[in-house]
Amino acid sequence: MLRIALFGCGRIGRMHAGYVRAHPRAQLAWVFDVHRPAAEAVAAETGARVAETVEEALADPSVGAVLIASSTDTHVDLLTRSARAGKAVFCEKPIDLDIRKVDACWEAVRDLGVPIQIGFNRRFDPSFASLARRARAGEIGEVRQVIITSRDPDVPSDEYMKVAGGLLRDMTIHDFDMARFLLPEEPVAVFAVASALVDERVRRLGEHDTATVVLATASGKQAVITNYRRAVYGYDQRIEVVGEKGMLRAENRHPTTVEAWTAERTRARDPVLPFFVERYREAYAAELDAFVRAVLDGEPVPVTFEDGRAALRLADAAYESLATGRLVRLA
Amino acid sequence: MLRIALFGCGRIGRMHAGYVRAHPRAQLAWVFDVHRPAAEAVAAETGARVAETVEEALADPSVGAVLIASSTDTHVDLLTRSARAGKAVFCEKPIDLDIRKVDACWEAVRDLGVPIQIGFNRRFDPSFASLARRARAGEIGEVRQVIITSRDPDVPSDEYMKVAGGLLRDMTIHDFDMARFLLPEEPVAVFAVASALVDERVRRLGEHDTATVVLATASGKQAVITNYRRAVYGYDQRIEVVGEKGMLRAENRHPTTVEAWTAERTRARDPVLPFFVERYREAYAAELDAFVRAVLDGEPVPVTFEDGRAALRLADAAYESLATGRLVRLA
Amino acid sequence: MLRIALFGCGRIGRMHAGYVRAHPRAQLAWVFDVHRPAAEAVAAETGARVAETVEEALADPSVGAVLIASSTDTHVDLLTRSARAGKAVFCEKPIDLDIRKVDACWEAVRDLGVPIQIGFNRRFDPSFASLARRARAGEIGEVRQVIITSRDPDVPSDEYMKVAGGLLRDMTIHDFDMARFLLPEEPVAVFAVASALVDERVRRLGEHDTATVVLATASGKQAVITNYRRAVYGYDQRIEVVGEKGMLRAENRHPTTVEAWTAERTRARDPVLPFFVERYREAYAAELDAFVRAVLDGEPVPVTFEDGRAALRLADAAYESLATGRLVRLA
Amino acid sequence: MLRIALFGCGRIGRMHAGYVRAHPRAQLAWVFDVHRPAAEAVAAETGARVAETVEEALADPSVGAVLIASSTDTHVDLLTRSARAGKAVFCEKPIDLDIRKVDACWEAVRDLGVPIQIGFNRRFDPSFASLARRARAGEIGEVRQVIITSRDPDVPSDEYMKVAGGLLRDMTIHDFDMARFLLPEEPVAVFAVASALVDERVRRLGEHDTATVVLATASGKQAVITNYRRAVYGYDQRIEVVGEKGMLRAENRHPTTVEAWTAERTRARDPVLPFFVERYREAYAAELDAFVRAVLDGEPVPVTFEDGRAALRLADAAYESLATGRLVRLA
Repeated sequence: MLRIALFGCGRIGRMHAGYVRAHPRAQLAWVFDVHRPAAEAVAAETGARVAETVEEALADPSVGAVLIASSTDTHVDLLTRSARAGKAVFCEKPIDLDIRKVDACWEAVRDLGVPIQIGFNRRFDPSFASLARRARAGEIGEVRQVIITSRDPDVPSDEYMKVAGGLLRDMTIHDFDMARFLLPEEPVAVFAVASALVDERVRRLGEHDTATVVLATASGKQAVITNYRRAVYGYDQRIEVVGEKGMLRAENRHPTTVEAWTAERTRARDPVLPFFVERYREAYAAELDAFVRAVLDGEPVPVTFEDGRAALRLADAAYESLATGRLVRLA
Repeated sequence: MLRIALFGCGRIGRMHAGYVRAHPRAQLAWVFDVHRPAAEAVAAETGARVAETVEEALADPSVGAVLIASSTDTHVDLLTRSARAGKAVFCEKPIDLDIRKVDACWEAVRDLGVPIQIGFNRRFDPSFASLARRARAGEIGEVRQVIITSRDPDVPSDEYMKVAGGLLRDMTIHDFDMARFLLPEEPVAVFAVASALVDERVRRLGEHDTATVVLATASGKQAVITNYRRAVYGYDQRIEVVGEKGMLRAENRHPTTVEAWTAERTRARDPVLPFFVERYREAYAAELDAFVRAVLDGEPVPVTFEDGRAALRLADAAYESLATGRLVRLA
Repeated sequence: MLRIALFGCGRIGRMHAGYVRAHPRAQLAWVFDVHRPAAEAVAAETGARVAETVEEALADPSVGAVLIASSTDTHVDLLTRSARAGKAVFCEKPIDLDIRKVDACWEAVRDLGVPIQIGFNRRFDPSFASLARRARAGEIGEVRQVIITSRDPDVPSDEYMKVAGGLLRDMTIHDFDMARFLLPEEPVAVFAVASALVDERVRRLGEHDTATVVLATASGKQAVITNYRRAVYGYDQRIEVVGEKGMLRAENRHPTTVEAWTAERTRARDPVLPFFVERYREAYAAELDAFVRAVLDGEPVPVTFEDGRAALRLADAAYESLATGRLVRLA
Repeated sequence: MLRIALFGCGRIGRMHAGYVRAHPRAQLAWVFDVHRPAAEAVAAETGARVAETVEEALADPSVGAVLIASSTDTHVDLLTRSARAGKAVFCEKPIDLDIRKVDACWEAVRDLGVPIQIGFNRRFDPSFASLARRARAGEIGEVRQVIITSRDPDVPSDEYMKVAGGLLRDMTIHDFDMARFLLPEEPVAVFAVASALVDERVRRLGEHDTATVVLATASGKQAVITNYRRAVYGYDQRIEVVGEKGMLRAENRHPTTVEAWTAERTRARDPVLPFFVERYREAYAAELDAFVRAVLDGEPVPVTFEDGRAALRLADAAYESLATGRLVRLA
C-alpha cells in the first residue's frame, strides 16, 4: 500500500484525491493546502488527515509518495523538499514556467534516487496509449508525420491566463509531450504562429488562442500541432500518425454510441466529452496506477522529470519562433 | 449498338430514357405512351421517334430490345407481344400483381428464346453488389442471416397506393428479391406482420406502412425485412449479412463526406440521398448496362423472369401470413 | 450504507461482488456458495464473511439486501426466503425457467413490501439507457419499430446449454426485456424461427444458435430480434428505434477510438468489447447503484419482478411459436 | 454548344476529352498533340478532328474554347496564342513553373477579354465544394483555421519529378489553392519544412516527399498543409475548417459503404478511391461544366488566372522558407 501526501487541494488536487481513493494499492494519508478549508474538504471525502504544514506530512515515515497539485509557482520548491525527504514524487505539469528553475531543481534532485513522475496524463488515454503502442510495435512501420489536434472548449478566465505562462506553456505543453511521445526521434527544431482571434480578453492580455506549431527531427520527421481555444462543439482531442505502412488515428470520444437520424440532423452523435476531467478520466487513473507501480514495484517511471523539462524547452523555443518568425533549432 | 423502344414515358420511363441516352452502346429508337405528350417530351430529350402504336415500334426490325416502364397492369401484355416480336425485353418490376397472369405470361414467352430482364435495380447498387460479391466469394463463410432495412421517405399518394398492389407487392418486393439474392438457398417459408401507423390515409385504404417480414430457408437460414413508409430523415436502405466468418454491412449513402461539429450537432452528416432516383443512380445505369451486354454479347441475364416471379410469390405468401398469422410454406 | 449478502459466488456472483465493493454506499456483508471455496475466494477479495448457511446471513439484522447470483434453479427459493426475511432482493435473470414457479413465487412475495429487482443489466448500458431516455423524451416522436441485434461471440459449453433453458429463455430473454423497455406498449403477440447452424454440438442438444423473433403490440408496433451465437468478430449488441420523427441507433463499443489505415485494412477499428463482462461494465455498476437507491432512498425499482416474469412469458410464447409456426398471442 | 480544341492528348488530356464528350453542351472539335498517335487515339474515341498544327485548330471560327492539357512548359505559349485568337481558355495547373513567365503571360492576355480558367479541380469536388459553400454561408461563423491533408499513394517516376517543379509546385500547389479557397483572407506569410523520407530516389533527385506548410493571413488566420507521397492505404484527401461556431470536415471517399466485421478486421471499409482520376471524377466533370457556363452563359470564371498565379507565388515563397528557415512574407 502506498501512502500518499497530497499538496494542493484545488480542482486538480481534489480530482487526483478521488483517483487515489479508488486505487486498491494507494491511500491518501495527508492533505495540505494553503487554503485550509480546501484541504478539509478533501480530507472529509477521503479520510486523509489535514497537515498543518508541508513538513508535518513529509515527516511521516509511513508516507511513501507526494502528489503535487498546487499552483505552478510552488512546484519546484515542493518537489525539491519532497524528494529530499526521500519521498517519491508525482508532480503536475508544468514543473515550472522558468527553464532555469527547472534546471536548478533537477540539479538538486537528480541524484536523490527517488522516482519522480510528471503529470502528462494524455499518454495514458486508452486511445492515445494504444495508438502509441501499436505505432511502436511497427504496425505502420517507421513514423514520419504526427498530426495533433488539441482544442479547448473555451478561453480560460483572465486570472488563469495571467499566471499560466501563455498558451504554448500551458496548453500546447501537453501536445509537445505527445509529439515527443509519438515521434521516433527527438524534435530539434520548432516553428510557431499564434494569434488572438476568439475573444477580446485574450488580445488584451497579449495572449493567444489560435496556434499552429511545427516540430522537426534531425532526419526530417515532422509533427504539427493545431490549437484553438473556443471549440464550441467541445474538447477536441485527436491524433494522427503517418508512417511507412499506413496511418493510425485516434478520434474524439463520445459518452455513448447513439446516433440520431432526424429531419434536422443525420447520423449525429452526442457531444464529445466536455473537458479534460471527463475526457481523460481513464488516463488519470492509469497515470496514478503507473506511478504506484513505479514506487511499489520498481517499474520505470513512464513520464520523467526530463520529459517535463523537454516539453518546456519546446514551449520556450516556440515562443522564440513566434518572436523571430524563424524555425528555432534546439541546441 | 442496341436500338431500344421504350413503352411508358412517365417518371420511371423518362428516367430510364436518360440512362439509355448516356449508354455508349444503346440508343433510344422509339418511345410510346398512351398519353402522347409524355412520349413527345422524352422524344424531344433523346431524339427518339414517337410511335403511334406499340405495333409500329415492334415492327421496326432495327429495334433489338423493348424497355417496359408503363403501368403495371400493361406489363404482361407488352412483355408478351414484345417477346413474340423477337425483341429482348427489359420489364420494370413487378411483372404483374397476379401470379396467375405471371405464370400464363411465362408459358407464353419462356420458349421464345429472347432475353428477358426484370427491373430489380438494387442488385446493381455498387454497395449491395459489392457486398453480395464478397459474400459469395466466401469472405464471411456460409451466410446465415440477412437483415434488410428498407424505409421510404414518405407515404405515396392515394392514387399510387390504390393500384400498387399493397406494400408487400410494391415496396417489399424489392426486399424479397434482395433476400433471395443474398441468401445461400431459396426461402421456403414466410411470415409477416404489418400495420398502418403513420398516416390515416393508409389506414383508410386498408393499406400498411410498417411491416416486418421473416423468411426462412429449408436448412434454417433466415432473412428479416423491416419496412417503414415515413422515414423523415430520408430513404433508408441498408443491408447486413451475417455468416460463419463475420458480418458484412452496407450503410446509407450521403451526397458528400462532410461532417458538421457545432454546438447543435456533433459529427452530423448531410442527409442521405432522398429517394430511389438519386440513391440508385449508379444502379439504374448498371442494370441497363447488364441488359445491353446480355442482348449484344450473350452474357447471362442477371435478373430473370423467374426472379420476378419468385419475388411476387413471396409477396403473396407474406399476405397469406398476414391473414392467417402463420408461417406460410411455399409449395 | 447498504449491507448485502451475496448468494452464489460463481463467475457472475464474483463480478457483482466487485461492483458492491466499489460502490460508495454498499458493503458486502456475507457471501454464501454451496461450493465453499468459491465463497471464500470472494470473501478474501472483499472482506465479507463466509456464511455457513443462507439462514445465517438472512438472520443478520444489519443485512438490508440479498443479491442472488446462484444457479437459476435456486433463484425462486432464495428469493422467497430472502423476501420473507424482510430483505430487499436483487435477483439475476431469469427468475426461473418455469413460469408456474415464477407465478407461485410472485404470490408468495408480492405483498411482503420488499424491493425486488431483476438483473436485466442492459437497460443500464449508457448507450441503450440514453437511447431509451431520448426516445421517451420524444426526440423521435411515437416509436413504431424496434430492431435489436444480439449476437454472442460463441456457443456456450454443453454443460451450460443443458441447464440454461434454451436460447430463447437464456439469451433472447435479455432482448425480450429490451424490446419491452423500448416499445411504447406491451407486446401481445410473438413469432419465432430458430435453427442450429453454427455447431454440431448445438444440434445434438436440440438447441438453437440462430434465431429471429418478431413481437407485435396491439396497435401494430413491432420489434425484431436477431440472435446468433458465433459472431467471430465479437459480442455484437446494437439497437435501433424508428419513430414518427426519425431514428435513434446505438452502435457497438470498442475499447479505443483508434482507426488503422493500412494496405490490408481501411479505417478499421479495434475489436468490439469481447463479451458481457466487458461490454456491460458500466451497466452492471449502474444497475447496482439503482438497486442501492431503491433500497436506501425509496426510489422506484427500475426492473421489477413483473418485468422478469414478462420476459419469460415472451420466451415461452416464442417457443410455442417455434413449435406451431404461428404468431402466438399472449392472453 | 461549345466547340472545344484540346491541346495535349496524354493521360490528362484524354481524361478531359472524356468529360467533354459526356457534357451535353460541349463538343470536342479538334485535338492536337506533338505525338500524333496520341491525338488520333482521342479523335477516334470522340469524333474530333486531328489538327496538324495548333494554328489549324485556332483558325476554326466555330471553336469557342481551348483546353490546354499539354506539358507544363508549353502552357504559357498555348494559352497566349489561344487567347489572342479570341478563344476562351481552360488551362491545366500550373500555368508555368516560373512566376516571371506567368506574369509576362498575364500582361499579354489580361486585356483580351476572354475567359481563362485554371484547372484546380479540387474546388469542384462535391465534398470540398459543399464544405466551402457551407463555411461561406456562415455555418461555422468566421473561419480561423484550415487543416488540409493531402497524401499521394506513391512517389512518381523520376522522369515526372525531374520536370514537375518540385513537390511544392507540383503537389502542394493544389493545397495552396485550396487554402486560399477556404481562408477568409489571403495568406500573407508562408513557412515550410520538407524532407525525403520514403524513397532513396527522391533524395537522389534533391526532391521531397514529406512536407508541412503553414500559411498565415494578416489578421492571424492559419492554414496547415501536410503532404506525404507514399500513403500505402491510398490517396488521402481530407479537409477540416475550424471557425467561430464549429468545425466542418470532409473525409475520404470509398467506392462503397460496405463494412467488414471479421476476426481479422473490425468495421473495415473498402480502400479509398486510388488516385485523382477516380477520386476527382465528379470534380473534373463539374469544373468543365463551370467552364462551359462561363463561356456560354457569361457566368464568372470560378478559378481565374490570378488564382493560378497566387498558388505559384505561395509555392515559391514556401521554397524560400525551406531555404531560409524563416516565415516568408509575401510582398
